[in-house]
Amino acid sequence: MIVGVLGGGQLGRMLGLAGLPLGLKFRFLDPEPDSPCAQVGEQLVGSYTDPATLDRFAAGLDAATFEFENVPADTVRRIARSVPVFPSAQALETAQDRLSEKNLFQSLGIPTPSYYPLSHRDDLAAGLDRIGCPAVLKTRRFGYDGKGQWLIQRAEDANLILSQLPAEPDSLILEGFVRFDREVSLIAVRGRSGEARFYPLVENHHQGGILRLSLAPAPNVSVELQRAAQAYAARLLETLDYVGVLTLELFLRGDALLANEIAPRVHNSGHWTIEGAETSQFENHLRAVLGFPLGSTDCRGVSAMWNILGAPPNYEAILAVPRQHLHLYGKEPRSGRKIGHVTVCASDWEAVHQQLEPIRALAPQT
Amino acid sequence: MIVGVLGGGQLGRMLGLAGLPLGLKFRFLDPEPDSPCAQVGEQLVGSYTDPATLDRFAAGLDAATFEFENVPADTVRRIARSVPVFPSAQALETAQDRLSEKNLFQSLGIPTPSYYPLSHRDDLAAGLDRIGCPAVLKTRRFGYDGKGQWLIQRAEDANLILSQLPAEPDSLILEGFVRFDREVSLIAVRGRSGEARFYPLVENHHQGGILRLSLAPAPNVSVELQRAAQAYAARLLETLDYVGVLTLELFLRGDALLANEIAPRVHNSGHWTIEGAETSQFENHLRAVLGFPLGSTDCRGVSAMWNILGAPPNYEAILAVPRQHLHLYGKEPRSGRKIGHVTVCASDWEAVHQQLEPIRALAPQT
Repeated sequence: MIVGVLGGGQLGRMLGLAGLPLGLKFRFLDPEPDSPCAQVGEQLVGSYTDPATLDRFAAGLDAATFEFENVPADTVRRIARSVPVFPSAQALETAQDRLSEKNLFQSLGIPTPSYYPLSHRDDLAAGLDRIGCPAVLKTRRFGYDGKGQWLIQRAEDANLILSQLPAEPDSLILEGFVRFDREVSLIAVRGRSGEARFYPLVENHHQGGILRLSLAPAPNVSVELQRAAQAYAARLLETLDYVGVLTLELFLRGDALLANEIAPRVHNSGHWTIEGAETSQFENHLRAVLGFPLGSTDCRGVSAMWNILGAPPNYEAILAVPRQHLHLYGKEPRSGRKIGHVTVCASDWEAVHQQLEPIRALAPQT
Repeated sequence: MIVGVLGGGQLGRMLGLAGLPLGLKFRFLDPEPDSPCAQVGEQLVGSYTDPATLDRFAAGLDAATFEFENVPADTVRRIARSVPVFPSAQALETAQDRLSEKNLFQSLGIPTPSYYPLSHRDDLAAGLDRIGCPAVLKTRRFGYDGKGQWLIQRAEDANLILSQLPAEPDSLILEGFVRFDREVSLIAVRGRSGEARFYPLVENHHQGGILRLSLAPAPNVSVELQRAAQAYAARLLETLDYVGVLTLELFLRGDALLANEIAPRVHNSGHWTIEGAETSQFENHLRAVLGFPLGSTDCRGVSAMWNILGAPPNYEAILAVPRQHLHLYGKEPRSGRKIGHVTVCASDWEAVHQQLEPIRALAPQT
């Protein structure tokens, strides 16, 4: 069977690495030649909007999916004419727009920070009146790794913020700033049959808007909290008739969860599942997309995932650290760029942190 | 870094799958087009003895290795002129010949079944006089999966056996038939620095000469037995100045180990290490060959590995079994052919056998 993947970055590469042992073959579409996917399948180099390229991509596929959410929904719709594509174009569109995400959360009774859509940047003053300060101004679409977000501490800073905005941002949304205790995420997966499974909540630590460290399962999470997060994710999966891995990012404040956003794909905060869970998020996404039974989401001990950003570290020194699993994506190093990650697994947190310490020192942010 | 692999079967494919996450790229040489390796690297289709092909293969490699032991030693020697190749041609030659293996065992004080080399098939009667019956007549070279072996129960069967021999077998060796309790193997790995590590002994079950089931760590093996096997392997590694994974196959009779043969490569009885050990045999072989520090050989629970032979089983049904890890090699099904394997890992044997039972039923030998 051949699986088509729109996007050929590290997520596509890891989908390929999970699928090859299942006997699957892969075809990727990515405008960048020699993308990280190129070693695990055929890569078509071309545009997501060129009909001839899309038809060439879709020819002979058994199923298709995407590995980043800025693929145009119309691209998914065109491919879906001839090949089953999961998640659906509708789910993708919902996740592409912060306003439709928030509206969906609200309609399903999932708590979310207060928000106020701006149809124009000039509406900012009215939004600040409603939301109060501090608030976060975000582009509704195409934000990632903290890009497209501006913190507004005081209403009188609004003009300065407006002057910093890119010339023509997509439409904007103003959100209440959440003084959260922790950021967590839930990786959920739903099969074509409607069966859903959930990994345990993951605790995420960001630095400059970029995910740096994930701890899984998130320490000190009660059964009730895990159940609440799963119930929210289950509502989203059902409503969207979702197939594949869906990531729900949440703020945790005391015992309360606030939904921040969803990613309609495998997610950086789920990389630990490769070694730390019975079935990785990548394998489960493929199982779901192909209509196979889902695999167990049980943990194998506890895990920490550390992103390698920017310059390549001393790999030999990292390989000398016990219980670590190094993953490099074959990307050219560039400041702030995710070029790999290291997962440390053990039976207890003490052992994990003991091995994580040298890894953190060997792969600092650059 | 680019690693060259002579041979592009499932072992090469799994080397590639282990090396891609480390950021390595692969080039394979195999005479068969579309070998299992073809999805994880570049495949050159050509002969192991064509100098121009070998030069094209070697160009730009950082290191090279082989994934099956019938690669001509001269091929390794030629590539070694321009690229570091491990294991060495000398280690390969030793392992290619049952007589030199046995002589090496004997010279190192490693117990081995009695043996008698035949320079011609007509020497069989003299050999049977010396060894006694039952005995096993084997081709010295190119045997695999029980091929090239003939059991001689009684001396008077010798003529019948001789009539069954292929027209012109390579030279022969007669070995005493061992009434073993169990067949076990030890996967050992030695780095360029001389550092050696050992996985626990594995219990192997064959059917028709083909490995069917491996249990790791081999149940009911004493610390002394593990130490003895490691001591034998350590002598072999040192004497051969070996770099890479070496597999030592042994018979276990009571508390006594008898060395049967060595394989100068990653081995079917080590496939469980992908999920069942901290570092897989494939990753450790690559680390050794590239001069990187070796990874931990500690187990993650207990594991059973079941080979899928012949016809493809119902994959969906296998995927529905919890705690299983399916590996397919992308090979055309053919009677008796290894086309994949399933590893089951758990914290105890009861749980492993519970999951293994449906797998055995779903993937019978065909």
